[in-house]
Amino acid sequence: MTKPNLPNEFVLIARYFARLSQGFPGAYGLLDDAAVIGPSPGHELVVKTDAIVGDVDFPADTQPDLIARKALRVNLSDLAGKGAIPRAYLVNLVVPDLVHEEWIAGFAAGLALDQDEYSVHLIGGDTSSTSGPITVAVTALGEVPIGRIIRRGGARPGDLIFVTGTIGDAALGLSVLRGTLPDLDSTSAAFLADRCKLPQPRVFLGPQLVGIASAGIDISDGLVADLKHICTVSNLSAIVEVDSVPLSPAAVAAIEGNAQSLATALTGGDDYEVLFTACPTDAARISALSRSSGTPITPIGRMIEPSQCNESRVVVRDHLGRPLRFASEGWTHFGEKDT
Amino acid sequence: MTKPNLPNEFVLIARYFARLSQGFPGAYGLLDDAAVIGPSPGHELVVKTDAIVGDVDFPADTQPDLIARKALRVNLSDLAGKGAIPRAYLVNLVVPDLVHEEWIAGFAAGLALDQDEYSVHLIGGDTSSTSGPITVAVTALGEVPIGRIIRRGGARPGDLIFVTGTIGDAALGLSVLRGTLPDLDSTSAAFLADRCKLPQPRVFLGPQLVGIASAGIDISDGLVADLKHICTVSNLSAIVEVDSVPLSPAAVAAIEGNAQSLATALTGGDDYEVLFTACPTDAARISALSRSSGTPITPIGRMIEPSQCNESRVVVRDHLGRPLRFASEGWTHFGEKDT
Repeated sequence: MTKPNLPNEFVLIARYFARLSQGFPGAYGLLDDAAVIGPSPGHELVVKTDAIVGDVDFPADTQPDLIARKALRVNLSDLAGKGAIPRAYLVNLVVPDLVHEEWIAGFAAGLALDQDEYSVHLIGGDTSSTSGPITVAVTALGEVPIGRIIRRGGARPGDLIFVTGTIGDAALGLSVLRGTLPDLDSTSAAFLADRCKLPQPRVFLGPQLVGIASAGIDISDGLVADLKHICTVSNLSAIVEVDSVPLSPAAVAAIEGNAQSLATALTGGDDYEVLFTACPTDAARISALSRSSGTPITPIGRMIEPSQCNESRVVVRDHLGRPLRFASEGWTHFGEKDT
Repeated sequence: MTKPNLPNEFVLIARYFARLSQGFPGAYGLLDDAAVIGPSPGHELVVKTDAIVGDVDFPADTQPDLIARKALRVNLSDLAGKGAIPRAYLVNLVVPDLVHEEWIAGFAAGLALDQDEYSVHLIGGDTSSTSGPITVAVTALGEVPIGRIIRRGGARPGDLIFVTGTIGDAALGLSVLRGTLPDLDSTSAAFLADRCKLPQPRVFLGPQLVGIASAGIDISDGLVADLKHICTVSNLSAIVEVDSVPLSPAAVAAIEGNAQSLATALTGGDDYEVLFTACPTDAARISALSRSSGTPITPIGRMIEPSQCNESRVVVRDHLGRPLRFASEGWTHFGEKDT
């Protein structure tokens, strides 16, 4: 017989979450009402929060460890895009009454795995009940040398645009899971679906971009939309050569002869790669960093003076220089209304 | 005709939330992916997060400004209990699709009011849609002199126990709103209901307790439960004289001849007063602080060596020294099961 209710929150903390704070003295073993954190000498803290919601950001029946890891990783990815070294995080876990203790155990186990992988600690949070879907808000704290955070607004005309890893896998993976790519070979389909389920944030590479990247962002809304964010705040336009955008073999297979899949790859989001700009004179340093870190880093275009004639600040063009058009530039909550 | 959807989140940020970050340079006008914050010299940051959920922590039809202010204030109250000066906060706002733009405007207006009142700034957050109830998670950041945070675990045997303000108003107010105090006079009923709707955290007093309080906590779970938290971590027991517990005239009217209402007042929670312990030799300083701050501070009992014979670490006794018993010691999410 399954238990109809969870033990109270103090028991849950003691049984599953307190151990996740071990090694971070300011968390006080989650036995106090707040945590204490100070940046390392010469550093300041970088703070980011993002929530994921059942049936919006993940299927309601997703395993609890994957939900936990996704909630944490999307925030670590933001820190990576800003050049910050992650240090700690807090979790608001809001779950329906029908959730069992085994679910909580799985959720905490997912956090434990990622804490080891990314060297962060749980330093606070709360659990609440809801009549709605599972909702997980994570607040992540990292640090950067004072004044050195990588901003959206630092790009300069002539800067090259780079991305880490490959683009479009997660968005195409969602298409696979939804059954809209039925002709794709099973190996490619499995690879893409996997990339959709669990982000691989560039936690170790991100901080190494401090002092190299003139602007940066992690790609969550989609390559085009997130590049547009850099353009908007930097007050510039951007040209992307579509043939330069790095694609996995599986994505190439999905896109072959399918214009809609190309649009999905470039605008679908959830890549959790780092998009950044840098002066062309830094190209050699970036190549060296790519080699030393084992992370593919690919130039895909360049920043230009703000365009007067185009409605979009981001132009993606094909090998003949013809601009591609997309029905939507990227993912956003709520409507597409801009006015 | 009402709008079926909200504008996208970028428009919401620009229209309602960006202005709440003005005056905090590290928030970058909410135009970047993360905020930067460093403590003042000689200080470290104190971090707290707590979520409130519709139909659990507030009635679903509560005005949006009150929801916003409650979400912020319950977190500021925790910082006050730790002696921290609040500086900034982040908000995860999760709302059903049927929420209109006017609702968002009201929510932001509530935050604006409290920012002015408590000198804090919005430095980040996100908005998500849900098929469930409105859910608001706030993460609050404050600061204390390094190593001086007021902990749960610092109480010593012989320390006096103090509370600010009056106890039980909010819990009795909830009884009023639920119609279970039908014989109460309308003035008292209105006062108590009001105390239930909007917490009044001790934001300005809390930091003045640094160096005075040996242990502290804000009362959210209930006087008895939160005192038990101090006892548990301090490894002590506590004796509270029930006749010393400060009650408002309205609470006195509600409790008169109603033993259940007394239990509600002492265990119902949502007081958002500060409960702290201090050495008896500091009593004069505390009286002076009470006068200078205009905040009632009342001694209600004392800490003793851990009890061997009582199952509860907190004994509330009447004027004849007889211990009172309560069916529940305080509010907790999920079940009451402790095993």
